[in-house]
Amino acid sequence: MQEKRGRFITLEGGEGVGKSTNLNFVTQWFESRGIDFIQTREPGGTPLAEQLRELLLQKRDESVDPTAELLMVFAARAQHLNRVIRPALAAGQWVICDRFTDATYAYQGGGRGLDKSLIAQLEQTVQGDLRPDCVLLLDLDPEVGLQRAANTGEADRFESEQLAFFHKVREAYRARADADPARYAVIDASQGLAAVQDQLAAELDRLVVQP
Amino acid sequence: MQEKRGRFITLEGGEGVGKSTNLNFVTQWFESRGIDFIQTREPGGTPLAEQLRELLLQKRDESVDPTAELLMVFAARAQHLNRVIRPALAAGQWVICDRFTDATYAYQGGGRGLDKSLIAQLEQTVQGDLRPDCVLLLDLDPEVGLQRAANTGEADRFESEQLAFFHKVREAYRARADADPARYAVIDASQGLAAVQDQLAAELDRLVVQP
Ligand SMILES: Nc1ncnc2c1ncn2[C@@H]1O[C@H](COP(=O)(O)OP(=O)(O)O)[C@@H](O)[C@H]1O
Ligand SMILES: Nc1ncnc2c1ncn2[C@@H]1O[C@H](COP(=O)(O)OP(=O)(O)O)[C@@H](O)[C@H]1O
Ligand SMILES: [Mg+2]
Ligand SMILES: [Mg+2]
Repeated sequence: MQEKRGRFITLEGGEGVGKSTNLNFVTQWFESRGIDFIQTREPGGTPLAEQLRELLLQKRDESVDPTAELLMVFAARAQHLNRVIRPALAAGQWVICDRFTDATYAYQGGGRGLDKSLIAQLEQTVQGDLRPDCVLLLDLDPEVGLQRAANTGEADRFESEQLAFFHKVREAYRARADADPARYAVIDASQGLAAVQDQLAAELDRLVVQP
Repeated sequence: MQEKRGRFITLEGGEGVGKSTNLNFVTQWFESRGIDFIQTREPGGTPLAEQLRELLLQKRDESVDPTAELLMVFAARAQHLNRVIRPALAAGQWVICDRFTDATYAYQGGGRGLDKSLIAQLEQTVQGDLRPDCVLLLDLDPEVGLQRAANTGEADRFESEQLAFFHKVREAYRARADADPARYAVIDASQGLAAVQDQLAAELDRLVVQP
């Protein structure tokens, strides 16, 4: 008897687009539907992966080599995927994750300018054929997002980047969505929270009725 | 005017073979010859890479995914190589490093059983064509090495592995040396320290006269 695999959903977008805020909305939506799920985030999601997150986000005197940054991201992902995400999906749980590999294409690819084919190679090594079933991409002008984010504590190593960096991040996210519209839902995050969440709910409704 | 590139020398071998002990011998040999050099180690060699070392060596409740471990090793290496080793070699300094990529083939490849072609792919990504000019491989029965190492503080996550793991590490090191004898010096580390160091000095003498 084969149990039904859970769905893997990610929340993506630049700084201050509302990922963390809407994660709660999504989990409440799951609860109201009686869907068994776990909520997690990247980088992070296991004790080791959270330690790697801390090393990635720390502001430091040392300039971080972009390839080193990329490999740390995928190291955390390998641990998270094999210890948390895959077992949950295999047990039939849905997984909602705050950021995943699209963020790597956006930040390390778009932002830092690393070769997309190198990211794709690591994605294949670490994930095999596993990809999110649905990417909820909150799209927003980075100037607005950074203003929103400015109120939520001291800037980390990424949040301390220049505006041009975040424009490249946004464009890389949008290019990914454009290239595979069936798997991405692009949501205009400049709207009020209620409108954003109506759209999120519509996407989730669609997902739950899919075979 | 092109400055002469320094030589890149690594000390390799399993636990307790004498790498740290003989590192001092090698640096004294450099000093006596008036060779400008730096001494470093892996994983580590920069503040970020040393933090990664700490995460790698820490004993933990969480079982570490082998691919996550491999990517952490190469993340630390990318940082170390681009911030420390390459600049030193370019400035004409010799580099003596306690462990490098041969240890990855031995521990993550031989010990953990990860695919050699994956290690080779990451080696190429992180190092390009850079390889050590000379690998000084201290070869020793792991039972003897572990007994020696047992006197040097509490066992870390690697030192806590079973004997079978270290036999595979040794075999992987020897296979690397067999496949490329010109670049490897295999030294019988079961000898007394004086004999080991005579052999190390002979290898260094050979290296210094090479064009
Ligand atoms: N649609 C929205 N309109 C206005 N403010 C919002 C909206 N979504 C989120 N915010 C606010 O923006 C700030 C950053 O949101 P957050 O969820 O932490 O973003 P992220 O996790 O994507 O960086 C928070 O103060 C949040 O309340
Ligand atoms: N040739 C040797 N004969 C006997 N003991 C040795 C020899 N080389 C090293 N030792 C001892 O073995 C122990 C481990 O050596 P160390 O240099 O720390 O090994 P490694 O760095 O390779 O793990 C130390 O106590 C050292 O004094
Ligand atoms: Mg957030
Ligand atoms: Mg040592």
